[in-house]
Amino acid sequence: MLKHRHGGDIYSTAYRIDYSANINPLGTPARVTEAAQKSILECAHYPDVECRALKSAIAEKEHIKSESVLCGNGAAELIFAIVQAEKPKKALLLAPGFAEYEQALRSQGCEVAFYQLKKENGFQYETAYWDHLTEDLDMIFLCNPNNPTGLLIPREEILKILQICQEKQIRVVLDSCFIDFLEEKEDADYTGYLQEFPCLFILKAFTKIYAMAGLRLGYGMSSDTDLLLRMKEVIQPWSVSIPAQAAGIAALKEETFVEQSRDLVQKERRWLKKNLEDLHLWVCDSKANYLFFQGPEDLAQRAKEEGILIRDCSNYHGLTRGFYRIAVRTEEENKELIRVFQKILKQAERRN
Amino acid sequence: MLKHRHGGDIYSTAYRIDYSANINPLGTPARVTEAAQKSILECAHYPDVECRALKSAIAEKEHIKSESVLCGNGAAELIFAIVQAEKPKKALLLAPGFAEYEQALRSQGCEVAFYQLKKENGFQYETAYWDHLTEDLDMIFLCNPNNPTGLLIPREEILKILQICQEKQIRVVLDSCFIDFLEEKEDADYTGYLQEFPCLFILKAFTKIYAMAGLRLGYGMSSDTDLLLRMKEVIQPWSVSIPAQAAGIAALKEETFVEQSRDLVQKERRWLKKNLEDLHLWVCDSKANYLFFQGPEDLAQRAKEEGILIRDCSNYHGLTRGFYRIAVRTEEENKELIRVFQKILKQAERRN
Repeated sequence: MLKHRHGGDIYSTAYRIDYSANINPLGTPARVTEAAQKSILECAHYPDVECRALKSAIAEKEHIKSESVLCGNGAAELIFAIVQAEKPKKALLLAPGFAEYEQALRSQGCEVAFYQLKKENGFQYETAYWDHLTEDLDMIFLCNPNNPTGLLIPREEILKILQICQEKQIRVVLDSCFIDFLEEKEDADYTGYLQEFPCLFILKAFTKIYAMAGLRLGYGMSSDTDLLLRMKEVIQPWSVSIPAQAAGIAALKEETFVEQSRDLVQKERRWLKKNLEDLHLWVCDSKANYLFFQGPEDLAQRAKEEGILIRDCSNYHGLTRGFYRIAVRTEEENKELIRVFQKILKQAERRN
Repeated sequence: MLKHRHGGDIYSTAYRIDYSANINPLGTPARVTEAAQKSILECAHYPDVECRALKSAIAEKEHIKSESVLCGNGAAELIFAIVQAEKPKKALLLAPGFAEYEQALRSQGCEVAFYQLKKENGFQYETAYWDHLTEDLDMIFLCNPNNPTGLLIPREEILKILQICQEKQIRVVLDSCFIDFLEEKEDADYTGYLQEFPCLFILKAFTKIYAMAGLRLGYGMSSDTDLLLRMKEVIQPWSVSIPAQAAGIAALKEETFVEQSRDLVQKERRWLKKNLEDLHLWVCDSKANYLFFQGPEDLAQRAKEEGILIRDCSNYHGLTRGFYRIAVRTEEENKELIRVFQKILKQAERRN
């Protein structure tokens, strides 16, 4: 069988704290849990195939029309659906990046090119990327903030990319799954450009910010309603379950929870980054709810022995062994993580 | 947007009883509901991408190996996945049949041929079907018992079809989503032939018998593990939610519930069929938990005005207006259905 290539595989090992999945450390809001539990009583019925109530709540929140929204069984379903609907012949990915873009593209026989971001530039976006936006491309994926680095592409760069891609008819999938954790969310919000750029498809997830990864809910937005219709044709009609729809509607009301989560995550990210650097580790300048860093090649294995799961990033395209990603979690958990890292690094020093 | 083409759309209209979806009238077993509700508390985590505990429970129940099982977000996801994985150029469907086979095939640009079953034969399977199993076919779908007719293909015919398809390398998708409602389930169970016929892919759902349509859970079985691997590649990793996995594991223990459901449905099916025939309606000889019949062209609309949803089958390939499918429900509900039909038909008579 396929090797599990993601964080969050808590099923094949005993563990104390999972730092490998980028989930809100505050957990699922109580009202979301309650709404999902209550909805289980309705589950003898099929879900609403049009997700009418949920789509209308999303549209209101995002200040767009309901027709511009498509819901999916997690954002991941929509990544596969847009590839299956568009059947791109050639696509360009930023590396390192989320593995699912490549899997979805390859499963449709698409040629995949990579623009490799460089460690010496701190894995920051490079303007030279423009030159790679050639006529033969059908699709690009941008993850903003990027996974695993947590870095943002500057706003003027994104707008330039959108202009080029609109002219050259390249579909732009802008994965914004982590923007609700940003201090300045507005910096990474491009819903206001959906009308101007029909090539743009913005992807968002409930998974991370509302900590409902197990319920599966994501959505896509585009002013190209024909694209959304073609995506709907390649997805089974009932893909979004009743508990996911109910939880989603409840989640959108949790504005205070989102603010509290953002504040906690940003404060703890700074603390964690400083403490990783104090351990003489190279740490990427993430703005998101996770940190990307370099450490000893056996760090993930050693941390696992201590009951802590971290994301070994060596299977990301263009990365070597020794790169890791950790989620930002609660103060107490983060202190424990640093304590464990200190112990592991001290033992490593002693061995050398 | 796409017109809703299925039963079970209870969201766009007020109604009293839904006869349009083929769901177990006893509803979701209490222990399944409890397991799903309890699992909501775990939903901050990602689901197990390998569905390990669930697959092992299914394998035990079906007396096959765990490697021969693939779980999906409802059986419908697996219909789309097998088409996306196999990329058939030409497929043969029985008509009338479940609309999703055609939608999945067309979404991949597959040529779809139909073998039309005839009203004058009571829509029974015809041996002449064999002649249409030609070398140029890549895939066939068989629904057994068939949806919407509820009829079974004789066992010796299925075995003959499997032999021909194995020789000619035609993939056979055998949709067995309704077999748990059959009086003699063994007549329609072909899991014992998976090893002999690697071309065979058997599809099953938790949706109907355990009344968990809103939770989304189905599975496929094949001894061709390479096929299952290719299907996994075209599906996002986390497609089966935590509540679906938990409910599935709980459901497989509900053997008494399944027996009671079957007894009720079979008794009520006979009663409903006799009463429809007493109203001088033509009724198909279904063995399943639903009945397919012919009635006045405005029957669905008139029933809806009385708060009863029935499935208008006029959009099935090869069917004209005036064909309907109803679920078999509880004694009380079925009496109400017949009372409403009597009223509508009497009014129609008076108008003529």
